[in-house]
Formats: sequence, C-alpha cells, structure tokens
Amino acid sequence: MAKTEADTLTGAEALVQTLANNGVSACFANPGTSEMHLVTALDKETRIRSVLCLFEGVATGAADGFARVAGTPAMTLLHLGAGYLNGGANLHNAKRAKTPMINIIGDHAVPHLQYEAPLTSDIKGLAEPNMRWLESADTVASTGALASEAFAASFAPLPGPVGLVLPADSAWLKGGEIGPVVTCDVLKTVAPELISEAVAALAKAKHPVLIINGSALTAEGLAAAARLKAHGIRVMTDTFYPKMRRGAGLFAPDRLQYFAEMAMDDLNGTDLMLAAGTTLPVAFFAYPGKPSLLVPEGCETLVVGGAETDSAATLAALADALGAETSAPMTELKLPDAPAGPLTAAAVGASLARHMPENALVSDDGVSNSLLSFLTTETARQHDWMMLTGGAIGQGMPLALGAAIAAPDRKVICLSGDGAGMYTVQALWSMARENADVTTIVYVNHSYRILNIELYRTGAGNPGPTAKDMLSIGGPDINWVALSESMGVPAIEAATAEVFDAELAKAMAEKGPKLIAAIVPG
Amino acid sequence: MAKTEADTLTGAEALVQTLANNGVSACFANPGTSEMHLVTALDKETRIRSVLCLFEGVATGAADGFARVAGTPAMTLLHLGAGYLNGGANLHNAKRAKTPMINIIGDHAVPHLQYEAPLTSDIKGLAEPNMRWLESADTVASTGALASEAFAASFAPLPGPVGLVLPADSAWLKGGEIGPVVTCDVLKTVAPELISEAVAALAKAKHPVLIINGSALTAEGLAAAARLKAHGIRVMTDTFYPKMRRGAGLFAPDRLQYFAEMAMDDLNGTDLMLAAGTTLPVAFFAYPGKPSLLVPEGCETLVVGGAETDSAATLAALADALGAETSAPMTELKLPDAPAGPLTAAAVGASLARHMPENALVSDDGVSNSLLSFLTTETARQHDWMMLTGGAIGQGMPLALGAAIAAPDRKVICLSGDGAGMYTVQALWSMARENADVTTIVYVNHSYRILNIELYRTGAGNPGPTAKDMLSIGGPDINWVALSESMGVPAIEAATAEVFDAELAKAMAEKGPKLIAAIVPG
Repeated sequence: MAKTEADTLTGAEALVQTLANNGVSACFANPGTSEMHLVTALDKETRIRSVLCLFEGVATGAADGFARVAGTPAMTLLHLGAGYLNGGANLHNAKRAKTPMINIIGDHAVPHLQYEAPLTSDIKGLAEPNMRWLESADTVASTGALASEAFAASFAPLPGPVGLVLPADSAWLKGGEIGPVVTCDVLKTVAPELISEAVAALAKAKHPVLIINGSALTAEGLAAAARLKAHGIRVMTDTFYPKMRRGAGLFAPDRLQYFAEMAMDDLNGTDLMLAAGTTLPVAFFAYPGKPSLLVPEGCETLVVGGAETDSAATLAALADALGAETSAPMTELKLPDAPAGPLTAAAVGASLARHMPENALVSDDGVSNSLLSFLTTETARQHDWMMLTGGAIGQGMPLALGAAIAAPDRKVICLSGDGAGMYTVQALWSMARENADVTTIVYVNHSYRILNIELYRTGAGNPGPTAKDMLSIGGPDINWVALSESMGVPAIEAATAEVFDAELAKAMAEKGPKLIAAIVPG
Repeated sequence: MAKTEADTLTGAEALVQTLANNGVSACFANPGTSEMHLVTALDKETRIRSVLCLFEGVATGAADGFARVAGTPAMTLLHLGAGYLNGGANLHNAKRAKTPMINIIGDHAVPHLQYEAPLTSDIKGLAEPNMRWLESADTVASTGALASEAFAASFAPLPGPVGLVLPADSAWLKGGEIGPVVTCDVLKTVAPELISEAVAALAKAKHPVLIINGSALTAEGLAAAARLKAHGIRVMTDTFYPKMRRGAGLFAPDRLQYFAEMAMDDLNGTDLMLAAGTTLPVAFFAYPGKPSLLVPEGCETLVVGGAETDSAATLAALADALGAETSAPMTELKLPDAPAGPLTAAAVGASLARHMPENALVSDDGVSNSLLSFLTTETARQHDWMMLTGGAIGQGMPLALGAAIAAPDRKVICLSGDGAGMYTVQALWSMARENADVTTIVYVNHSYRILNIELYRTGAGNPGPTAKDMLSIGGPDINWVALSESMGVPAIEAATAEVFDAELAKAMAEKGPKLIAAIVPG
C-alpha cells in the first residue's frame, strides 16, 4: 500500500526518532519559535527525556556531563545562531573533553534566509570552529540521514560535539525519513610498532614518565598503570581530564601540576616522556620568560597513542610487552578526622572525603580552591572525578545537572568557585525542576582569586584600585543562599568547619538538590 | 634624547591610551589571565571607567546600551574565544542595532598558540561573522595603530561591533606606539536622485507608506516625518529599532506590527512603500504558508536610503522637495488614571506612563508583555525607547546597565520578561556595584508566553505534556525578589496595580538600582 501524506513524518519527527533509535535518551533544550516542531516531535518520543534549561550554556554543559557519565551522547536544542553562541563556551569545553554531543540548532526556513530577518546569522560560520562536524538539513528528506551521520560523527574520528542545523521548514514539512542505526567507530587500539618503540626507549631511560588521559583513567586502565608503575615508570595524569576513577582500591597516579614552573620542577630529571591518550603536556597560559612545552630539556618523548586511541588498551599492551606482572600498591581507604575551626578549602576537602558516598560523581569547577578537595579524596571511597578541560569556567553546575540525569542513582557533588558559578547559575533552576540529586558546594570568597595569583605571575605590575576592583567580586557580596533558594534549590551557609561537616553529612544522606555556600578565605 | 626601554609603553598601554585619546570612556570587562596587562593598563588610564561584569553577555549588552545613549563606542574586555562566545548573542544584537563597539579579545601569546593549550580556539573563525571588522594585533608595534583602525571601523562603512584580538605577548611587551586620533565617517546623506525618484513615485501613489529607522527616530528626524505625514504619507517605524525619541511634543509615527499576517492586514491597500534608514520589512520568523516579505502584492517599493545613510536628513530633503511646509500634529501630554485591581501588563503600562520622568531611557526586552507599556507611553513625558533589534533575548538588563553608565543623570527603566531576564541576570550585580540608576521591571508570568503563542502560529500541533513543560518556566517558580536581592539590588513584588503604581512612583523618585517583580497573568 502506498504511503499517504498523513502517514509520513515531519522532518523534526524523523530527526528525533532517528536519534532515539540510535540510543539518544536525553535532550537539554532551550527552544524558540523556529524549534516548535522539534518540541512537538519530542513530545511524541517517549524514549528521550527533555530537560528545559533557562540558558543555552546550561544545556550544552549538561549534555557534556550526561555523556561523560552515560557514555552515549545527549542532544541539545538551540535557537539559531544566538542560541548556539550562548552555549558556545561549554561546547568549547566539551570539544576539549572529547565528549560526544549532538547539537540541533534551529534556523529560519530556507526561503526566509534571504531576507536577513533579525535573528538570521551565519550559523555555519559561527559554529564550525567549535564543532567536530557540522551540517545543515536543508531539505526535509535529509533530516533522518543527517541525524544518523551526526550521531556517528559525534564519536569518530575523535569524539566531540557535532552540530546539525535544522531550518524550520525542514522541521515542519512532511516527508521525513528515518535514518539508519549506525555503529560508531570506537577508540582505535594503538599500533604494535609504537609499543615496541616505547619498550626500546624505556630500556634506555633512567627516569621515565608516562602521561595518561582518556580510557587509561578508568579502573581497567589504572590497573594497567599500576603494573607500569611497579616496573619503574612514573605515571602521571594530565592536569585536567574529563573523568577519572579514584579512591580506595585503585592505583593513584600523580597529577601534572597546573603552574608551569612547578610542573617543570616536578619533572626535573625526567629523561623519557611517554604519552597515552593525550599529547605532550603544555602550559595552560604563556607567561613572560616561562616555557610553553612542559618537557625538560634533553628529555626524549614518544606519544604512544593520542586522544583517538584506547589508552587503557595501550597501557595493558605496554605492560604485557614489558613483562610487568606485579602491581604497585592500591590506595587504601583513609578518611580524615572531622575538621574544626573557621572553614577553609582544606576543611571542605576533609569533609568531602569523610562523607562522599561510594560511587559518587564529582564535577570540579572549583578553580583555585578545589585542589585541596582533590587531594584529600584520593583515599576516599571510590568515585569519579570530572574536570574542566577547556578552561572556560561556568561548566561545573551544568555538568553536574547532566551527570545527575544520566545516573539518577548516584550522588553528584559539584564544586564551584563563586566567580565560575555566576556564569551559568541558571543550572540551579533545572536541578530543582528535575529534582536532580546534586549537592553544590560553592567556595565563596568574593574574588576571582586565581586572577590575583595570575596578576603577579604574568608580571603585570602592582594592581591599583581599578585592577583590584576587576579581580574582586565582593561589593556587593553575592548572597548564595538567597540566590540558590530563589531558583528552588534549598541552601545553607557554612562559615565553620563544624557546620560544613554536619551539613555535608546531611546532604549526602538525603536525595535531591542542595547548595552549601562554603565561606572560605579570599 | 633617544627613548629608553623604560620610556616605552606596553602594547596594552598603547592600545588603551589610543582608545582613550579617541574618546572611549567606558570599558565593560570580564578579564582572565591573558588580559592581566590590559587590566593594569586600564588601572593607569583615568579617562576610562572600568565596569566589571560577571558574565560576558552582560559586558557586550552594556557596551551596546552605552553607545546607543552616548553616541560613542565603549570597549569590552573578553577572555579568549570562550569569553567572546559568552558575549556573542548580545554582539549579534548590537550588530543588528548598528551600535559601534570595540571588543578587545585577549588571546594566548603568539608563540604559545601552536601548543593548543586548553583555552586555545580559532577566535577569528568564531567571531568573524559576528563583527563588522576583526583583526589580531600579532606584534606589540601594531597595537596602537590597530586600536585606531578598530575605532574607525566601529563607525564605518556601517556602525557595529568590531573585534581586536590581543595576544598576551603583544600586551605585555614594551614597544607599543600610540595610534592616531581618527575622524570617523558619519552616516552618508542620501543621493539627490533618490529623492527625485521618491518624489516622482509619490506623485503617482494613492496610499504611500514610508518605513523609517535610524536617525529618523531622533527629534529632528521626527519633525521632518511630521511634515511628510501632513503631506499625506503614512509614516511607520520598523517593528524594532535601536532607539526612538517619543512622548509629548513629538510626532508619533505608526509602528509596523510584529506578526506577519497582522502587518499585512495593516498595510493592505498600500501602493507605494518607501524606506529610509532601513530596508523593506520582513517577517521576524517564517510560518507555513505565510509571507516573508511584508510588502503587499503590486505595491511599488523604493529604498530612499539604507541603514548607512542619515535618514533624518533624507526625510528633511524629501519634505523640502515635496514642498511639505506644515506638520502633522504633535503628541499632547496625556497621562492615564491610576490603574486598579490585579496587576496586568496594561496596568504596568499605565503606571509607567504616569510616573516615568522627563528624559527617561527605556530598555525594552519585555517580549510579549511590554507592547502595552509601549502603547501607553506614547503620550507620556518625552523619553527614549530602546529595543531588541536582533531577537536574542537577554539584552534588556545589560543594555540598561550600559545606558545608566552613559547617562548617570537620566532615569533608566528596564522592561524584561522573566524568561529573557534569566539569560543575563548577572547584570543586576553590576547595577548594584555601580549604583546604576536603573529600575528593572520583570514581567513574572513563569512562562515563555510568546512561545505558547508561536506554537499555535507555526502549526506545530497541540502541545502534549513535554511540549507544555518546555514552554513553562514555572515549577519551580523563580523568586525574583530573592534573586535580585541576592545580587544587591533591592526588590519588591507587586501583584496588584495599586501596589505596582505606588512602588514605581517611589522608584522614580529615588536614585539607584531597584527591581519590581510584576506578577502578571501567564
């Protein structure tokens, strides 16, 4: 029987069903007029959970968090070029984290574009540098097939955010066809010749270091890393990574330091640097007279496999090739004593280590303060730690929201600076709306504290009153409890270690969103 | 005497001094590590007032508001590609408003770029489509000259935002040279042959309409428009424009309607459409089966001068050529009675008309609710009304902040939807910090109300629960009083017309920032 017009799908329906068939199960959306047919298509697709975000930077950050935890991409729904731009900084972060993500960017109907209506912009031009793949579904017939392509492109050749522009007429017209279910290229295993090369180089090296990222930071990868460590190789992670399994029962590699001069001191004497799942380390920023590439002079280097490879498999292959049978010792559970006195970043870290439940997820956008929590939790219960890999602050709360949607049975903890938190503070509202099980800890010091450090490090001179003002976010002090509660997230302030410890314990025992304003020194 | 190293300026200093010499007097900044030398250079430049913003979308929106009021561009300070992206939507709006603006985008030091550090991005690629002009100062020697070029390019050939990328080493190195003070091309006067052509077309037309924007919306332009109106030409403004002088003593042109079908009904019978300071009108969005170009069939059209021309001068020249001596009547002052009962958007409009002081500035991001305030204030005391010209909501509060910095002696009123307000709500903090004389009225209906209208208009079908959820921003309801006060702006809620009227009267009599949460029907 021939299909009638009524039987066929709109382009929006074909797109949404194709993505659902491929396993997409969450959509973080901030729709506008040009996306109305997508909204009604999502209405009919029960396999996809739609989460409304009040700002697109929340949507893209949440999609990043979702995929880091679920392993499958979420979709976002963005309103033309302006909506993409609002979500752009967290797309940059996701690209650096190699997180698969499918961004559906609504556009004007194709015949309307020529008229340069107010919201018209060169979406492809604006978005191309920020995406791994970008196409426009300029006909209704192409929507399903391009949705399949987008899904595949979000994984390979390198995972990351992709964009599919959907003109309004391609969404509303009938004639959509569902695209195929695609198998995604997984991470490549490393070439055997590189393993042999590494073995040869290690035979000559006295102080070898192996820098790891990617799948090497899973439990399986870390088990292989422990064998390499026992074989005499110092194993270090990149300073920032998308996600690492940590805590009791796991091998704990070192971490490359943030400040270039400290990293170089730490690496002093290294005569061979291998990298797996990453590239050779570089300084986050350049400083006058300081090195960019963090490789000691005269040190040999070898990238055993970049970000496109399965670094866990690389480490196992290397350990096998070296005959590394035994393992370095695993971390033993060790929880700090209850902290006391005025609250500090160290006390926050102690409480976090004490109370964080098994299998927690941490979203770290704590800038200068969260390092202490990172250190104390090394011997805590097993958990996953997620970091800001792209440097654009304002990722923490959205990432935590997405993680909570992906793993409703795991406790999510968000560590955020107060400066960082203000970028995408609208995430709190979506946490309340979705009853997301996220405890957000905001380090409140009323300061861009890291910039006070950086001002001196860059040699920009002694700050006068204007410069000091530019780095201080006090005057007025933001009331984080009122801010959080205004968006429906219960909140409390803690200025002493005792109060913080008790409140955190309570938050860990309960379900649902909560915010603790941790008053720490500036 | 030869200059010594110590005598010379850093690139950052040369850039900042050049802009100050050219008349730049405000900088809306959200700096990061790569901009530290700009921060200390601003510290030494007392002619530029630096205003810290907690989010870059606030900085770019404020710079837009500043220039719309001051007539001279402000500078912004953005942190690499991510900072530009965060400010991108309000740059889109500013580009559509033809607002001059100089965006200084910090970048990594040139030798550091090759290492692909986390914050590295293709800034030029990301920003080019959003700017009128974009260059990178890749050497310290070029900083001053390029700052002069940027200043000039922000005015001509068409005013708008420009971008100057400043690598950190170009900022920190000595050897900066101050660039010239440049004269800016002003808006072109219109070609006399187009005036003659318009006169000839008008001689044959029975129902001519003239669409105006740009300088035609100043008091001077409106005086010329009144002569054309008296001569039998219907004068209409674009639906959205950057700024218009309105109120008692001025000629009040009609306004093109927002919804395409209503606009077409209104224009029915028009046989000649002229445009000055703008182009032929188009629908904001496309809808299935509805027109894009808002020109009745068979209607002759003539653009007497586009956005690059001085439309006030065009109107005067046309009136002279037509021998149009008399004027249409000017608006008489007429203030509504005090409204009563439950608060509505109409009651907000009545109170605004009653209490808005002479020479007030209105920033309108009120989406579906502010039309009623627009209508009632037509006969109010003289004021300037500023609109969202690019369709990217989230402009209202930043624009109001910038306007208040430009005109500290004028009362600024911001009308914002609650959905729109949440995009750049961080602007409230800067208002508090700067003690900006802004009264923000948020229409609180817990809804993307316009989208509920648009869902039906686009024929996207009956909304199911997911679709309804995507258009509702209740659940949880945002507490705007708590939100505002958390950032230091005193706030009050008004649910009745009586309370609103009294609170607005109080706010108009006082100085400093205030927010009124106007609870209106959804």
